[in-house]
Amino acid sequence: MTGVRLLTVPTTGPDDTDALDTLSGNGYSADDVLAVVGKTEGNGCVNDFSRTLAAAAWEPRIGPDAVTVFSGGTEGVLAPHVNLLIADDTHDPRHDRGLVAAVGETPVIPPEDLGRVGQMEAVRDTVAKLVVDLGISADDVHLVLVKCPLLTSTDITGLRDRGIEPASGDTYESMARSRAASSLGIALSLGEIDEDTARAALAGQRTAWSNRASASSGAELNTCHVLVLGVSTEASNPLRALHTEMTDAYDLAALQKAADVVAQDGGRIRQLFVKAESDPSGTIRGLRHTMLTDSDINATRHARAAVGALTAAVKGDGAVYVSGGAEHQGRPGGGSVTVVYEVDPVPTAPSNRGADL
Amino acid sequence: MTGVRLLTVPTTGPDDTDALDTLSGNGYSADDVLAVVGKTEGNGCVNDFSRTLAAAAWEPRIGPDAVTVFSGGTEGVLAPHVNLLIADDTHDPRHDRGLVAAVGETPVIPPEDLGRVGQMEAVRDTVAKLVVDLGISADDVHLVLVKCPLLTSTDITGLRDRGIEPASGDTYESMARSRAASSLGIALSLGEIDEDTARAALAGQRTAWSNRASASSGAELNTCHVLVLGVSTEASNPLRALHTEMTDAYDLAALQKAADVVAQDGGRIRQLFVKAESDPSGTIRGLRHTMLTDSDINATRHARAAVGALTAAVKGDGAVYVSGGAEHQGRPGGGSVTVVYEVDPVPTAPSNRGADL
Amino acid sequence: MTGVRLLTVPTTGPDDTDALDTLSGNGYSADDVLAVVGKTEGNGCVNDFSRTLAAAAWEPRIGPDAVTVFSGGTEGVLAPHVNLLIADDTHDPRHDRGLVAAVGETPVIPPEDLGRVGQMEAVRDTVAKLVVDLGISADDVHLVLVKCPLLTSTDITGLRDRGIEPASGDTYESMARSRAASSLGIALSLGEIDEDTARAALAGQRTAWSNRASASSGAELNTCHVLVLGVSTEASNPLRALHTEMTDAYDLAALQKAADVVAQDGGRIRQLFVKAESDPSGTIRGLRHTMLTDSDINATRHARAAVGALTAAVKGDGAVYVSGGAEHQGRPGGGSVTVVYEVDPVPTAPSNRGADL
Amino acid sequence: MTGVRLLTVPTTGPDDTDALDTLSGNGYSADDVLAVVGKTEGNGCVNDFSRTLAAAAWEPRIGPDAVTVFSGGTEGVLAPHVNLLIADDTHDPRHDRGLVAAVGETPVIPPEDLGRVGQMEAVRDTVAKLVVDLGISADDVHLVLVKCPLLTSTDITGLRDRGIEPASGDTYESMARSRAASSLGIALSLGEIDEDTARAALAGQRTAWSNRASASSGAELNTCHVLVLGVSTEASNPLRALHTEMTDAYDLAALQKAADVVAQDGGRIRQLFVKAESDPSGTIRGLRHTMLTDSDINATRHARAAVGALTAAVKGDGAVYVSGGAEHQGRPGGGSVTVVYEVDPVPTAPSNRGADL
Repeated sequence: MTGVRLLTVPTTGPDDTDALDTLSGNGYSADDVLAVVGKTEGNGCVNDFSRTLAAAAWEPRIGPDAVTVFSGGTEGVLAPHVNLLIADDTHDPRHDRGLVAAVGETPVIPPEDLGRVGQMEAVRDTVAKLVVDLGISADDVHLVLVKCPLLTSTDITGLRDRGIEPASGDTYESMARSRAASSLGIALSLGEIDEDTARAALAGQRTAWSNRASASSGAELNTCHVLVLGVSTEASNPLRALHTEMTDAYDLAALQKAADVVAQDGGRIRQLFVKAESDPSGTIRGLRHTMLTDSDINATRHARAAVGALTAAVKGDGAVYVSGGAEHQGRPGGGSVTVVYEVDPVPTAPSNRGADL
Repeated sequence: MTGVRLLTVPTTGPDDTDALDTLSGNGYSADDVLAVVGKTEGNGCVNDFSRTLAAAAWEPRIGPDAVTVFSGGTEGVLAPHVNLLIADDTHDPRHDRGLVAAVGETPVIPPEDLGRVGQMEAVRDTVAKLVVDLGISADDVHLVLVKCPLLTSTDITGLRDRGIEPASGDTYESMARSRAASSLGIALSLGEIDEDTARAALAGQRTAWSNRASASSGAELNTCHVLVLGVSTEASNPLRALHTEMTDAYDLAALQKAADVVAQDGGRIRQLFVKAESDPSGTIRGLRHTMLTDSDINATRHARAAVGALTAAVKGDGAVYVSGGAEHQGRPGGGSVTVVYEVDPVPTAPSNRGADL
Repeated sequence: MTGVRLLTVPTTGPDDTDALDTLSGNGYSADDVLAVVGKTEGNGCVNDFSRTLAAAAWEPRIGPDAVTVFSGGTEGVLAPHVNLLIADDTHDPRHDRGLVAAVGETPVIPPEDLGRVGQMEAVRDTVAKLVVDLGISADDVHLVLVKCPLLTSTDITGLRDRGIEPASGDTYESMARSRAASSLGIALSLGEIDEDTARAALAGQRTAWSNRASASSGAELNTCHVLVLGVSTEASNPLRALHTEMTDAYDLAALQKAADVVAQDGGRIRQLFVKAESDPSGTIRGLRHTMLTDSDINATRHARAAVGALTAAVKGDGAVYVSGGAEHQGRPGGGSVTVVYEVDPVPTAPSNRGADL
Repeated sequence: MTGVRLLTVPTTGPDDTDALDTLSGNGYSADDVLAVVGKTEGNGCVNDFSRTLAAAAWEPRIGPDAVTVFSGGTEGVLAPHVNLLIADDTHDPRHDRGLVAAVGETPVIPPEDLGRVGQMEAVRDTVAKLVVDLGISADDVHLVLVKCPLLTSTDITGLRDRGIEPASGDTYESMARSRAASSLGIALSLGEIDEDTARAALAGQRTAWSNRASASSGAELNTCHVLVLGVSTEASNPLRALHTEMTDAYDLAALQKAADVVAQDGGRIRQLFVKAESDPSGTIRGLRHTMLTDSDINATRHARAAVGALTAAVKGDGAVYVSGGAEHQGRPGGGSVTVVYEVDPVPTAPSNRGADL
């Protein structure tokens, strides 16, 4: 069991690690960092070197077991920032529960497994292990964040030279396949879907999803980095979490309902982790959108800009974690939502447990 | 005085004029159209031929005095559509007021006047004339929509060949200068600012603005098309309008407050006309945004995507008129907002007049 | 048999039809125009409305049997322009041959046939008919230019609603599929490949191609427009043609060799029709290129910019027809090349016939 | 005096430093590296983190006095690569001259000096010092390569907060101003222009330029990195250099003439350093180009793609150094060109000295 604190710090660039100063100003050291989950200001697509730069800046400065998840793309009002998840098992008797987290890494995903069963099962197994480590039930998990690889041109050529057809011959499309496999692995691990459903989904069905999965892909890693976030009664700290789902890219009501639950619980929103995508049908609420036919801007960039504005409005600032490409992370055209919030210490009146909306 | 009705019809492409069928299905003819105000699916910038295409499709089909205002850019969740403003002076005794509109055109704006006093005064004079035509006071105006020219490379070279330095040597920047001159012309005409303030603003001060101005620029015209929208007690129809201001690009509260006023008035939102821009300071509520340093996507596109999502969420669908580049249209980083709404006929209980929030 | 003249006129925008004035200045009328083959300044991809705008401007101004082929994308040094192919059967006894052309249109390509055998066979049959009409052998054909449809989001959704999986669910990718089917139809018709090879190629093999095929796709049409260009001894005019192939995207030697043949023939290059693509292997001459991993600029735009510069350098000006996406139009990573040139009238010394390099 | 060798190594990504292995395979160590001059695969504009990533990867691996110059943007056929300039004063009696290089850095350029006289003079002085260090005359210099800072949004806001107007309020435009100031500093230092001309040029005149200047700007540094390359009779190695000028963006003839000189000298081209820009007049050889009105792709990206193809064709591979934004680096619309080549050791027949074409 690892109780955690959350520190959200705006950055001046992808390689800005000044959050470490804020960390030490709060009495922690870099060794306490479990995970760095950041939004960097690249295009969020294949040739996004802002993620690689951030990883290069952060990884030498944190412990060997800590993971980094950098999601590129701060379109619209989004503010580049990092979220540090800090291990802190201090027992505060005024809290009867608290936020807990565990992090890990899958084995290297070979290019031939990317976007396929191999990747899905690697993620499933790593998530399962982390949930066990946390000592919580799958129901108490509110977010599984995965950063997973993509296929580069070199990978694709290499596979074909070996007579193997990759999951996709297009690098941008391979990002989607990788997110899909990771997300279905999460859904499997949390018991939300069964193996058959997962395999059908991997083959193209968009009928299965997890509202607690958030996967992003990048060229800067060859394993999947995994972060599991939940609420445990073994921990005692002021952080709580809940999860819900946006049913489409301007489902403000879902976000507001989540904010209402937080407010009813006497809490203050500390962070939102939201997935965004352009509806694959080409329409939203019956009206045509143009994200999929814009050959100048990739659809994931459009979707982040739109969902980012709603999320920033609900939090009140732009340092929110909105990630693009929501395959099997919420229903088609929608996206998974996790809210981390802080409550006042009221030991005699137990706070709302992390709720499923 | 010209009472108007509003017809909002989604389009399948910039050259889709099927709204004319809807028009005739509602008992009107193309001759009744005062203005076609549309969102087309281009980049909204210099080389946006979706606007030109829409104008080429619509202009032969409507009367010679009708104006077209096509604003490019349906980023994010925005749905391409047209808004037809239809002249209808039918007197409905159950309404003690109604929405009125007048349209006109400035003389040709010579390239040397673009973004300068010449354009500002041309817009000022045309707006003034239209307000007089409507027989309402400036206070009863809730929206002045202007479509204005930009400087092409050919214009810029032509000016320089004649020894004249254009307002900007950059075509994209010239769009901003043109919107600024138009907006200040509107503010002057509505009595919101005086001549000195207008000239200082034109020279670069961002301290003057109108919350009722909405200007967009394009290469498809060389005059300014002008539409004035107001509420008159001489008219009697179910449409009303109000205006307000977003103070920044995720000022959802401003939109929700406007929606509350509509609801209190027993109305239903029919359309929102909103201007969007990236904060020129590089920050929003103290946090850095990256719209101005993104060399892949112009800042106006980012801003439309963000503000478009909020506006769509408030209206409940994506067919909203969100236009990018809000120089002097609301404060810096914010944008002007006009809501057109419909009320039930309740002649004995006079509806809320078009309100200033 | 239809002898033709060629008029190449720069344009000031996609809707500039001033070339008609040049036409009449040369003693021709709009009715003499067989085809308008233009480069317009859009992105050349799905949402390129410059092509639609050009078609809307030109089609009402030329005869009902004339075809338009607008190829979007004038990246780099390319200059927007139109090429008018003008029917002129004037017999000039000083020429023992001359350039001939025929144009036609396939039936409407239903979305389910796009990129598939149905489209391939429709193109094959139309080309075959046109070659017969010209009364030349397939060997004397130097260019078959096809403009073909793509799949819009609406098409894709419509097919899936009917339980039909489209050739591609991605609109940009559907452009490539359409070009491929058209090009293989051309190769079939010219006897360059057999049916089995064509079907294997359509299924993904890149081992078959035509050096005389040039296909581009767009949303502005639902049939395939076809232009066949050849040299006939029945005609007698100063124009000649030859074709060759660039083996990769900077195969300047191929272009220079073609220019040398023209020079040896005493000719002057009038136009080059060249296809460009980024090598699907991700490398050129063993070195990595980044066109396929650039998520900000589509690969076809990169390729046009590169090949356009070489072509402009060889012609000496930027008004060259370079079109992106060369599936089965020249070998993978290369592209088909047709040179139209003009020779002096030397009746006693027969000019070089249109040569295969 | 420092004789140099040149090692050009393709890279698999911006952070690929495997060239160091090639270096040691050739008997050198990282300490021998004077400069790393690379092309990285970003957008070459403001938010190009590929340059920062490359600098972060290389700088810890080379000596403290070595400089890095990373130029972003490998559009079209360009191949990402690094050029290592390696100090080697080995005396080869079979050569009566050889390539020499010196590197240095200006003091920090404060944001208020960027694009202004302060920056120009800092570059001028650093270049002058390096030429003296090399012990050659200005005439024997064939390339001065400068990497200089740009203004970020933060810089611009910071200056304005202090009441100082920056050289440009637009980050992308600031890149051009910085290149201009650096290039004029080079021209001054080489005695190509006088102070008055330099100041007039800095104020906007495009009538002064150096054909030996190559400046690129980036957010990854706050000083100017400077590399001076020349030919000295004090050195004796097989490398030579010459410089010339492209007069427009498809001036292939200039490149071919340079290649001819190399061939006449019995040499083989080792590298070309070429600057590219879109003609600011909006036309090339009288025909309109669309690079300046493309709001989707910045003009520098277009220009690199075009000039890159010509340069790759002349060298025979895509690993050429083509950098965008040629303000005062060659005439407007053109660009400076430096060719480094290798000759066989023929001590009795002195090779052509580095020539001015």
